[in-house]
Amino acid sequence: MIHFSQSLTRLIGELKKLPGVGERTALRLAFHILKSPRLGKDLAESLLEVHAGVRFCSVCFGITEEDPCCICSGERDETVICVVEEPQDLLAVERSGAFSGRYHVLHGALSPLSGVMPADLKIAELLRRLEGSSIREIVLATNFSVEGEATALYLGGLIKPLGIKVTRLARGMPIGGDLEYVDSATVQKALEGRNEL
Amino acid sequence: MIHFSQSLTRLIGELKKLPGVGERTALRLAFHILKSPRLGKDLAESLLEVHAGVRFCSVCFGITEEDPCCICSGERDETVICVVEEPQDLLAVERSGAFSGRYHVLHGALSPLSGVMPADLKIAELLRRLEGSSIREIVLATNFSVEGEATALYLGGLIKPLGIKVTRLARGMPIGGDLEYVDSATVQKALEGRNEL
Repeated sequence: MIHFSQSLTRLIGELKKLPGVGERTALRLAFHILKSPRLGKDLAESLLEVHAGVRFCSVCFGITEEDPCCICSGERDETVICVVEEPQDLLAVERSGAFSGRYHVLHGALSPLSGVMPADLKIAELLRRLEGSSIREIVLATNFSVEGEATALYLGGLIKPLGIKVTRLARGMPIGGDLEYVDSATVQKALEGRNEL
Repeated sequence: MIHFSQSLTRLIGELKKLPGVGERTALRLAFHILKSPRLGKDLAESLLEVHAGVRFCSVCFGITEEDPCCICSGERDETVICVVEEPQDLLAVERSGAFSGRYHVLHGALSPLSGVMPADLKIAELLRRLEGSSIREIVLATNFSVEGEATALYLGGLIKPLGIKVTRLARGMPIGGDLEYVDSATVQKALEGRNEL
């Protein structure tokens, strides 16, 4: 690649660091950006804006531009905290419109095999929020993966002894789910948790 | 998405303008960038660097930081020009190591249905390069798509009357190609162009 421009080579290198972007995609993106210089400039500016302005809330560790975030400082139910793995999970719960309490973002899930231990997550920060607070329920909304389930189990073990109610999102059939195509573990959980009509 | 940071929303909007990036991918990329602020900053800087430094060569319209580019100003065979559609095609030919002449990038291919007419490509610029020059061969390396073939045909019709040899890249089986899996049009062209061993 001798005839490449140095700065373009650098751009391709940076693009390759994005998830799911390999050599070919990075090349395609770079040439696309090259063809629309406006896009490159706008993208750079908004990256710098995010870099300068977006931080994690010091209370819930969600994404925010002001600290504490609008959820932590807003008029939300202070007695319920929904615990999620990542900031995007917070958005998913928020989008559902079914939760009016506050949040706590762990920034990951326990995964001893990949070296993610309790100290790597915002667990100590969560326990500190519970001390002498009026919180009466913790909704564990970690993912339903091995790591997410392990994290929920671990948190339950820590929080229940404090006399706080600990709940987990219901497992069952997804809306629009087709029995034929849903995995059998989900069907099993849906059967176990069946409700009377 | 009320609880989103404004600058993050803007970043997601910009990312969505990239080819092959939809809402979900943009979200994933944005959150990845948020988790590694260093990457966001580096990416922004290299985008600005490309925006400020990279331009098209005024002779061949390839990518360059200096004008004319190193191929146009270097010691390359001045009598052969390889015509390609896009700057990345120039790189593909260059990577093959089989071409020692100069290039001309059209920046597209004829496509009347999408409104790409001869005046939209660097065709007039190519013809100007041929005037009173020592060029003896034009290698048409446009793609083997309908548009690329049409462009090659069109250019051939323009250039041949000038008394310059016009060639087209060979069609045939790709190296490592499996007869079973290669499309029949390619097999047909490979048969028509068969060489004696």
